[in-house]
Amino acid sequence: MTAQPARAVAPQPPILLREKVGSIAVLTLNRPAARNSLSEGLIAALHGALRDIHDDTSVRAVVIAANGPAFSAGHDMKELTARRSDADRGRAYFAEIMNACSAMMQAVVHLPKPVVAAVQGIATAAGCQLVASCDLAIASETAGFATPGVDIGLFCSTPMVALSRNIPRKQAMEMLLTGEPVSAATAKDIGLVNRVVKAGTERDAAIALAQQVALKSAYTVKLGKEAFYRQAEMSLANAYRYAAEVMTENMMARDAEEGIGAFIEKREPKWQDK
Amino acid sequence: MTAQPARAVAPQPPILLREKVGSIAVLTLNRPAARNSLSEGLIAALHGALRDIHDDTSVRAVVIAANGPAFSAGHDMKELTARRSDADRGRAYFAEIMNACSAMMQAVVHLPKPVVAAVQGIATAAGCQLVASCDLAIASETAGFATPGVDIGLFCSTPMVALSRNIPRKQAMEMLLTGEPVSAATAKDIGLVNRVVKAGTERDAAIALAQQVALKSAYTVKLGKEAFYRQAEMSLANAYRYAAEVMTENMMARDAEEGIGAFIEKREPKWQDK
Amino acid sequence: MTAQPARAVAPQPPILLREKVGSIAVLTLNRPAARNSLSEGLIAALHGALRDIHDDTSVRAVVIAANGPAFSAGHDMKELTARRSDADRGRAYFAEIMNACSAMMQAVVHLPKPVVAAVQGIATAAGCQLVASCDLAIASETAGFATPGVDIGLFCSTPMVALSRNIPRKQAMEMLLTGEPVSAATAKDIGLVNRVVKAGTERDAAIALAQQVALKSAYTVKLGKEAFYRQAEMSLANAYRYAAEVMTENMMARDAEEGIGAFIEKREPKWQDK
Repeated sequence: MTAQPARAVAPQPPILLREKVGSIAVLTLNRPAARNSLSEGLIAALHGALRDIHDDTSVRAVVIAANGPAFSAGHDMKELTARRSDADRGRAYFAEIMNACSAMMQAVVHLPKPVVAAVQGIATAAGCQLVASCDLAIASETAGFATPGVDIGLFCSTPMVALSRNIPRKQAMEMLLTGEPVSAATAKDIGLVNRVVKAGTERDAAIALAQQVALKSAYTVKLGKEAFYRQAEMSLANAYRYAAEVMTENMMARDAEEGIGAFIEKREPKWQDK
Repeated sequence: MTAQPARAVAPQPPILLREKVGSIAVLTLNRPAARNSLSEGLIAALHGALRDIHDDTSVRAVVIAANGPAFSAGHDMKELTARRSDADRGRAYFAEIMNACSAMMQAVVHLPKPVVAAVQGIATAAGCQLVASCDLAIASETAGFATPGVDIGLFCSTPMVALSRNIPRKQAMEMLLTGEPVSAATAKDIGLVNRVVKAGTERDAAIALAQQVALKSAYTVKLGKEAFYRQAEMSLANAYRYAAEVMTENMMARDAEEGIGAFIEKREPKWQDK
Repeated sequence: MTAQPARAVAPQPPILLREKVGSIAVLTLNRPAARNSLSEGLIAALHGALRDIHDDTSVRAVVIAANGPAFSAGHDMKELTARRSDADRGRAYFAEIMNACSAMMQAVVHLPKPVVAAVQGIATAAGCQLVASCDLAIASETAGFATPGVDIGLFCSTPMVALSRNIPRKQAMEMLLTGEPVSAATAKDIGLVNRVVKAGTERDAAIALAQQVALKSAYTVKLGKEAFYRQAEMSLANAYRYAAEVMTENMMARDAEEGIGAFIEKREPKWQDK
């Protein structure tokens, strides 16, 4: 009898799936058994994908989706807890993770292309923050949103940076202080998501919305998205000074000349792909 | 046969109608064939009217309305495009127009009297910005709102300064990135307008609302409107420091003495007209 | 016939009732005949109670309620008016009251424990400001909210500091410029209150909500509430820098170690009482 061949180690599926649907990059959180918690690896994979997409002219918009019953449960508590045995009880590691996660969330905001969340399940803590950080969000009618860190002694302080810039103050405080989830319908009412769709259609709806924006001039979308978040932090007078400069630059660009010309001539514009 | 008399040039109707309804100044955009687009002339006419009203004590509130099917289509694209043949391809002119329009919008905010928009049709781009810049807004149930610059390669960067100070972030981003219109009902839900009324009644409803405010002390309204926009840009501590000073000044004014006295004596107050 | 004994002066009921319901401090405005107007004495009593509660570890959350048909009518106009006979026509006193009231409102915001308003009737001017200043608010279905200072020549400038940080701009302006009340249902829609309940149940509902938060780690709630209001005034980049530090500190705390451990071990956490 011959020796059995060594059993091949089954390859691990990647924790972040990267697909292209036309000009849309679909990033799918793929740690379903861990409720897509944002481990160090998943944060790095997301940030890496956003870096790659940043200058990839073939990508016009991004969808962030997730596999499994949860969209994302936030930070990976087991991974964090394991570092309590470090010499510094984990402090350096925790700081590193919190900064890495904050940098990834800001990379969503600073990406020069629109990012649409497709939320199929519960999005909690940093998972809810990821939805709030996206430019647009589509939720399944069965999705839910919560910032329940308060229930485990760890207030959702970084998630609230994004959350409190999306929804009214008292509603944010209720989510943060009680940890209670809000339904997709409530999330729409308070401004956390744009649209609620039939369960199972959220991914396609997010891709369709992304494709709608992808048909616009990439230059214009990039210019506008950046200006949106910058002017939001300015006084009215400074915001107008800045935005008037942006408009003038925009007018001088080839895509505005083409777009306005097409508008006047009642024809379809042809955008420069850059 | 005698020569025909030279045919008199028909006088052009003014592009901005100025009327008084009691103490209310009603400014009506009157370029219906051009969808009330904000040409250089119309921006100047609006700003000029606001300058005249600024110190006119007979005017206690302003309504901005429009003639024709559209409230305003935003900038006049034909006028802008014509300047692409300038030596600098229009840059100086575009900068001038963007600054002039931003200054006019800020004149609405800084006018020491309330300004109410009466929106009878679609308000797009800088037209939507004009609604967002008003203190209050009444919309016909058939009105619509959009920031569709992205469709012609010219992102609504100046409109978003006003829009993003009225409505939640994700809803603003959806309007800006998709260019899709929102209905009057949605505009009310997200905070862009105060009330939606039966089509054809929006002008009267706006005048009635303006008249309601016009019955208050002009001094008090002026003080309060200015303080509102100033404190909105301050930290909580600075806002309270500033607002407490405003309240003390207000208490010392004749109209507060009269108003509080009338309140205590359960009679109608008589405001000083200043 | 013997002399009648001297009739004892009936003791005045306190203008602010202070009770404990478990770990919840319930502060009840108790000047019902004066519609709970915020007299110098009531402002001082509220501020004093908040000061006492600040370091009282037996108190985990606060409810602010009121007796009588009104929640609070705002400043006490008779008390203010009486000082018009001062040598300076009241200026120094008015400044003192406005600053004292603003300091008390900020003490609600800075209290390291959640504060829940229980609004049983109309909350006007500084009464509406008190609701807006609380972290959370429960309203009876029969409650109402208004900033009617404009009707008596005294614009609600300090109330608007809190109000405009709770609700959208146009809705705030409508309340401030018209003085018209909004219903509890509208208050919920625009973000001024969290929940509307059956009349007569608002106090119990507020206590129940407070108790829900009181079961969390006091350390975590304190850290999170402070961070919430601080980061709200920062740019996105600064807010993330700050919040990431807060999260790291939070991770190092005993309650986070316990809470996360309990979460992983699927048991109830035991908070340190501090």
